[in-house]
Amino acid sequence: EQDPRASRHNETAARHAVADVPRARPDQTVAEVLDALLAQPSECIDLVCVLDAGDHLVGVVPLAALLALPRDTRVGQVANLHFPKVHDETDQERVASLALHHELSAIPVTDAQGRLVGVVPAPALLHILRREHVEDIHRFAGITRETLHAREAIEEPPLRRLRHRLPWLLLGLVGSVLATFIVVRFERALSVNPAIAFFVPGLVYLADAIGTQTEAVAVRGLSLSHARLSTLIGGELRTGVLIGLVLGGLTLPAVWLAFGDWSLAFAVSGALVAAGGIATTIGLALPWLLGRLGSDPAYGSGPLATIVQDLLSLLTYFLIVSAVVL
Amino acid sequence: EQDPRASRHNETAARHAVADVPRARPDQTVAEVLDALLAQPSECIDLVCVLDAGDHLVGVVPLAALLALPRDTRVGQVANLHFPKVHDETDQERVASLALHHELSAIPVTDAQGRLVGVVPAPALLHILRREHVEDIHRFAGITRETLHAREAIEEPPLRRLRHRLPWLLLGLVGSVLATFIVVRFERALSVNPAIAFFVPGLVYLADAIGTQTEAVAVRGLSLSHARLSTLIGGELRTGVLIGLVLGGLTLPAVWLAFGDWSLAFAVSGALVAAGGIATTIGLALPWLLGRLGSDPAYGSGPLATIVQDLLSLLTYFLIVSAVVL
Repeated sequence: EQDPRASRHNETAARHAVADVPRARPDQTVAEVLDALLAQPSECIDLVCVLDAGDHLVGVVPLAALLALPRDTRVGQVANLHFPKVHDETDQERVASLALHHELSAIPVTDAQGRLVGVVPAPALLHILRREHVEDIHRFAGITRETLHAREAIEEPPLRRLRHRLPWLLLGLVGSVLATFIVVRFERALSVNPAIAFFVPGLVYLADAIGTQTEAVAVRGLSLSHARLSTLIGGELRTGVLIGLVLGGLTLPAVWLAFGDWSLAFAVSGALVAAGGIATTIGLALPWLLGRLGSDPAYGSGPLATIVQDLLSLLTYFLIVSAVVL
Repeated sequence: EQDPRASRHNETAARHAVADVPRARPDQTVAEVLDALLAQPSECIDLVCVLDAGDHLVGVVPLAALLALPRDTRVGQVANLHFPKVHDETDQERVASLALHHELSAIPVTDAQGRLVGVVPAPALLHILRREHVEDIHRFAGITRETLHAREAIEEPPLRRLRHRLPWLLLGLVGSVLATFIVVRFERALSVNPAIAFFVPGLVYLADAIGTQTEAVAVRGLSLSHARLSTLIGGELRTGVLIGLVLGGLTLPAVWLAFGDWSLAFAVSGALVAAGGIATTIGLALPWLLGRLGSDPAYGSGPLATIVQDLLSLLTYFLIVSAVVL
């Protein structure tokens, strides 16, 4: 659970931990613990932390559960030894995910030796989730230094916005240069039949749109699913081909009716089917790969996957069109 | 705060409210309230709800605060009359936003007459935020019936995925038909100079990418910012033109060096500057408009704004290129 990136960005569990929490020894009775709590209230009272003589966390009793216990019970006997806890260096997002998963309102934090550091309270968990929400959307769209608050991003000076957005757009510019080279390679085909160019913007737009949907599903889904990658990619590939068949099926008669060119209609529809399969596969595989390389899957998903999808879809279209039309 | 859409989708505050909470009358002392709590513990103990004889909520004392009070204090004197509360029909997202804004771990819910319904506890608030997170990303990418859990969306059968993703893609197909018509209108220009087609995919891709960044900033930012729309659009327009100037500035010498055609280089760069301004303006104005029309700004932002941006950027490019190159 230790995460060097978390501590580098000071997004650790320790940063959110409140130290002023109810503490108890295992041999204390419920009555003694409640008396102590009533005599000296704590800042965050959700969890009573049971500590040994060395201040190591040996168990947790939520206050709501403690109140329902017979008063002569020793807390050491009822403390949950397996109550979810995190290390002080654990990434904040992991803390919030743990609370979500176990339906908890607070999470205890210990140091590397297991000594209690404090408890991350509910308002901090809510802030962590909202922050991750804004970060995910910004990363998804290729905005680098995600502003802490959504409101800042929409109000900061244009030059700062430029700085946050330009890095991924410059990568996009490199992708655009590659796209240009692909079209240049098929210059002869374009001179012979300029109608080939008619469908390029629509194809690029649809490949983008199909891929973006997959990336959106992958951003959170990849970290939650326990299915194997081959199963996940298989499902997305089939979905993409289905989407391509529907869009291509509608396009085939439309292009044929509008332009009277059967082979052009076939090439455009075929490229759409291919684009569907390519966009969904890349849209899932690339975030997965980035996740495996230790980066947030949301990072490259938008800008990077979109370039790769567009280039492959464009190449497929021109290869089909060259083979069929010319 | 009443929201007909919330109750239609059963995403109301009432759905998450826990009824079993500590209740007190204004004339009870802190000691009496604590005795009652110790004698009969409640499910959600964060907030002590102070009620009048008709069970109307007249104030709230957080338990952590109550513990610190002198035991002979009457709770009616210390109860916070302005503690944030919501109606049973209030949309769940509003409940979570209120908790976030006021740094609270639970929010009381009343009916239309002000009678206590219950308290939304912290784990429910965490689930609401995570759900809104997944919904935002799915809506952003144009996935209609957002699955409740991110994990389902990546594991459901391909035919169901098709059903969730196809509606916005069909709208995208209509956009692609319009894009095709725009290119067809400039068929003569393409026959004269096929090089015009070289830059179409790159331009469409970059207009997409620039606009997606703005939409990402707008999704949450619009509902949080108190600035006027003209100020917000002005900022995004300036940002977009700056982005366009950087990308266009890099493109101008590159296209000139690669193709030796000064007017083509000028047209491509000019179109990039225009595309920057168009994409950011549409990317902000369209989500705002959808928000004003009562829809979630995240809904159309991705798919709809992208089509409009692409069509306008494409049209601008062909108009510039027709005026300059031919």
